[in-house]
Amino acid sequence: MGSVAFDTIETPFGKIDDALGGSATYFSLGASHFSKAGIVAVVGQDFTEDHRKILQDKKVDLSGLEQLPGKSFRWGGRYGFDMNTRETLFTHLNVFENFKPKLLPHHLDKEFVFLGNIHPSLQTRVLKQIKKPKLIGLDTTNMWIEQTRGQLLDVLKLVDVFIINDAESRELSGEHNLLKAAKKILEMMQKASPTLVIKQGEHGLLMFGQGQYFNLPGYPLEDVLDPTGAGDTFAGGFMGYLAKCGDLSWDNFKKAAVFGSVTASFCVEKMGTQRLQEISLDDIKKRYAEFQKLTHFE
Amino acid sequence: MGSVAFDTIETPFGKIDDALGGSATYFSLGASHFSKAGIVAVVGQDFTEDHRKILQDKKVDLSGLEQLPGKSFRWGGRYGFDMNTRETLFTHLNVFENFKPKLLPHHLDKEFVFLGNIHPSLQTRVLKQIKKPKLIGLDTTNMWIEQTRGQLLDVLKLVDVFIINDAESRELSGEHNLLKAAKKILEMMQKASPTLVIKQGEHGLLMFGQGQYFNLPGYPLEDVLDPTGAGDTFAGGFMGYLAKCGDLSWDNFKKAAVFGSVTASFCVEKMGTQRLQEISLDDIKKRYAEFQKLTHFE
Repeated sequence: MGSVAFDTIETPFGKIDDALGGSATYFSLGASHFSKAGIVAVVGQDFTEDHRKILQDKKVDLSGLEQLPGKSFRWGGRYGFDMNTRETLFTHLNVFENFKPKLLPHHLDKEFVFLGNIHPSLQTRVLKQIKKPKLIGLDTTNMWIEQTRGQLLDVLKLVDVFIINDAESRELSGEHNLLKAAKKILEMMQKASPTLVIKQGEHGLLMFGQGQYFNLPGYPLEDVLDPTGAGDTFAGGFMGYLAKCGDLSWDNFKKAAVFGSVTASFCVEKMGTQRLQEISLDDIKKRYAEFQKLTHFE
Repeated sequence: MGSVAFDTIETPFGKIDDALGGSATYFSLGASHFSKAGIVAVVGQDFTEDHRKILQDKKVDLSGLEQLPGKSFRWGGRYGFDMNTRETLFTHLNVFENFKPKLLPHHLDKEFVFLGNIHPSLQTRVLKQIKKPKLIGLDTTNMWIEQTRGQLLDVLKLVDVFIINDAESRELSGEHNLLKAAKKILEMMQKASPTLVIKQGEHGLLMFGQGQYFNLPGYPLEDVLDPTGAGDTFAGGFMGYLAKCGDLSWDNFKKAAVFGSVTASFCVEKMGTQRLQEISLDDIKKRYAEFQKLTHFE
């Protein structure tokens, strides 16, 4: 559950206009390599058969994609030379402004659910409809941390996995140090065995759960063309891998984090979703093995 | 070979005045946990028996520490809240200004030599006196990259291991991407099997050599009190470990990088050299095992 949008992106290496994007798009493309993914989102009349085909080619279930009169969510952004700074040029919410996720009967039986970044009270409403959740994941953003902190804390109590970036973890916890931030955030989560993933962009991630933690560097890349969607692709690969095997041991969470990172490393190699459309599970597995080789030590 | 200095350091968490520091100090304290380290440096009359004892307690050979009339190198710096930004408050070179490293006969037989950050032509002069070098390491800084590039490239051709930080690697290569930067810098090195370590501060390091590379995240710490000397301590632990076992296989280079990182992770936990004086090899080995556990995945 998240957004399907059209992105206009400028980087020092290229520009694309109105490319299919949004959190649900990147998430489902990431997850599709491991499990059958389905999305719950809203689009306008500008969402065409060509757009639909991009997702259907990866077997993404679009029955939950509502199409309304009007235009889809549109976002424009420009990246600086080092790809770490991003300037938003415009945000037109359009039909996404009044998005109320509508679950179909078959959605209610899903065991693995990811709540993309929308108002936390809408996330809670979706979550409460799931009958037998096995693993619920959550994303959010600094806007909700600042504007709807109470409602965010409410939904946080109900989820198993919380995936945010370092700046968000610092803002939510009031701690600069990420180990201290993680301790505080894990205390806010009230499920029996919560997992927290703090993404650090090109510098990898820290994951906390089951009384342990895991530190993964970023997969080193020579050519980063467009970082858009990398975080959502990570979440998709992560949840998709866990859904595929159903094994929620710590060792498997670590594998999921590596698979998520590797999938996201492909995402940034071309503009928009292009690279995610090209790759296969074999490409991901090959890079996984390479990643293991270059981080392993005796 | 490097500097012995007195540092005045302000961080958001503490302040120390005229504490023993300098690249040779931190390097030798880092190396001392693995091998017998010796330093070639210069100090003034303000270097007391108490300062000498700090190094001698770790069996550091001080026969190459020249004492001249005048004051020792003094440096003052202030760190910002996130410890990543540092403002130099003053630099008084004093006796270090005209430092000409003087090697004693027993130095000429050393197999493992580290050339700390001084003018590259002085580094070359030291290097050429070593009779049977097995592994020569080099540090430098942006000043020499900018002001004496030709002489830096000359010494770079003669060394086996080059240890710099990410900003320096970018400046030297003209490449922002660290993989591209590494390729260019390795081409500047002309020994049979050169190794390049690019330090990324709290984000760990990348190491390149023997046709392979290695990516290590930073060891996560809850309390960073003072980052001063961490890079030199890394180099000391790295070279000290390699000197101890004499095994220059890629697997052992990786272990050396982890031992260097772990030793440096202790360095930053207290002000100045305090923590490095307290710890034992057992503490380092324990944290090494912990680091392995939190980065390993199947």
